[in-house]
Amino acid sequence: MGSVKKALDFIVEIEKLKDVHRKTRPVGLKRYENSAEHSWHVCLAALALKEFSNVEIDIQKVIKMLLIHDLGEIDAGDTIIYESETSENKKKEAEGVRRIFDMLPEDQASKYLSLWFEFEDGKSAESIFARAVDRIPPLLHNLHGNGHSWRENNVSKEKVLTLNSRIGEGSSEVWDTLKSQLHEAVEAGILK
Amino acid sequence: MGSVKKALDFIVEIEKLKDVHRKTRPVGLKRYENSAEHSWHVCLAALALKEFSNVEIDIQKVIKMLLIHDLGEIDAGDTIIYESETSENKKKEAEGVRRIFDMLPEDQASKYLSLWFEFEDGKSAESIFARAVDRIPPLLHNLHGNGHSWRENNVSKEKVLTLNSRIGEGSSEVWDTLKSQLHEAVEAGILK
Repeated sequence: MGSVKKALDFIVEIEKLKDVHRKTRPVGLKRYENSAEHSWHVCLAALALKEFSNVEIDIQKVIKMLLIHDLGEIDAGDTIIYESETSENKKKEAEGVRRIFDMLPEDQASKYLSLWFEFEDGKSAESIFARAVDRIPPLLHNLHGNGHSWRENNVSKEKVLTLNSRIGEGSSEVWDTLKSQLHEAVEAGILK
Repeated sequence: MGSVKKALDFIVEIEKLKDVHRKTRPVGLKRYENSAEHSWHVCLAALALKEFSNVEIDIQKVIKMLLIHDLGEIDAGDTIIYESETSENKKKEAEGVRRIFDMLPEDQASKYLSLWFEFEDGKSAESIFARAVDRIPPLLHNLHGNGHSWRENNVSKEKVLTLNSRIGEGSSEVWDTLKSQLHEAVEAGILK
């Protein structure tokens, strides 16, 4: 059993995720999104979309994964998916989550760490779905926000369609709907 | 079964919670916290503190509750706990969550709505724990942030100690630790 004091220190430490900025703006907002509010958003997105998963999933596990999936960014920062993720950056993230989870009792630390690696590996049904959901809000931000992040980061329609096809691995229905919205965005000149 | 399109609309709609501002600043940040990042924070706080719950709880239910507990603020705004919660405000929140959950298929909408009311009622073991956890971050923000929100809102030590005693109903161990940190804050002149 751990101590309350240490758990409170952990709660204060993870708060730093509220200061990690992402590359898209939430719909209707001028500022960039941070990784903490993003983490909340994808949890509810996973709940709203779970019925469309290609295979049966343990949604509780998906949510726990999504709650912790970005904690590595506290030490490593956020990387846009259209820039290739370097192994150096991934190593930094893994060291970061290890440092943070080590603030918790050992049994909890190792459970969270293996859940984090399961998400990163993207092989289990839950991680495939969680990684699919993780990609959705940035698309919605661009679709409802005049493609601002695609423009700012010079992202082509080919890149958007190729790199987000991972969504289809989690849910072909969701990816089909998003693809048709993306094609509409191309026709509207928002995505080039 | 609902439609993907409607689920995506729900995901865009709830994003408005990122623009509901609370009354404390996250540790180390100058800006006020928003209710979306707060909702993420309390989910992880609940996970880190679950072993200290006074009674056995279904932590998955607690997390689901905490993910949705503030959605009513999208229409009603945030209220500091030291101002008495008016029934008018509560009614507005209930109407707000009803409006938002109605974007989901009926069976999901009614499940979320009853979970939201369970949290509000604060009678079940899970809601007692969730409501306790919900109170913790503002205390930590003040304890690690020179009592900024207590000062800005003229909150006395008596009020802080009385109104947060609800934490003890969820976990007496957590409340004991926080109480001693609050007494230290009084001695340091941060809380008056």
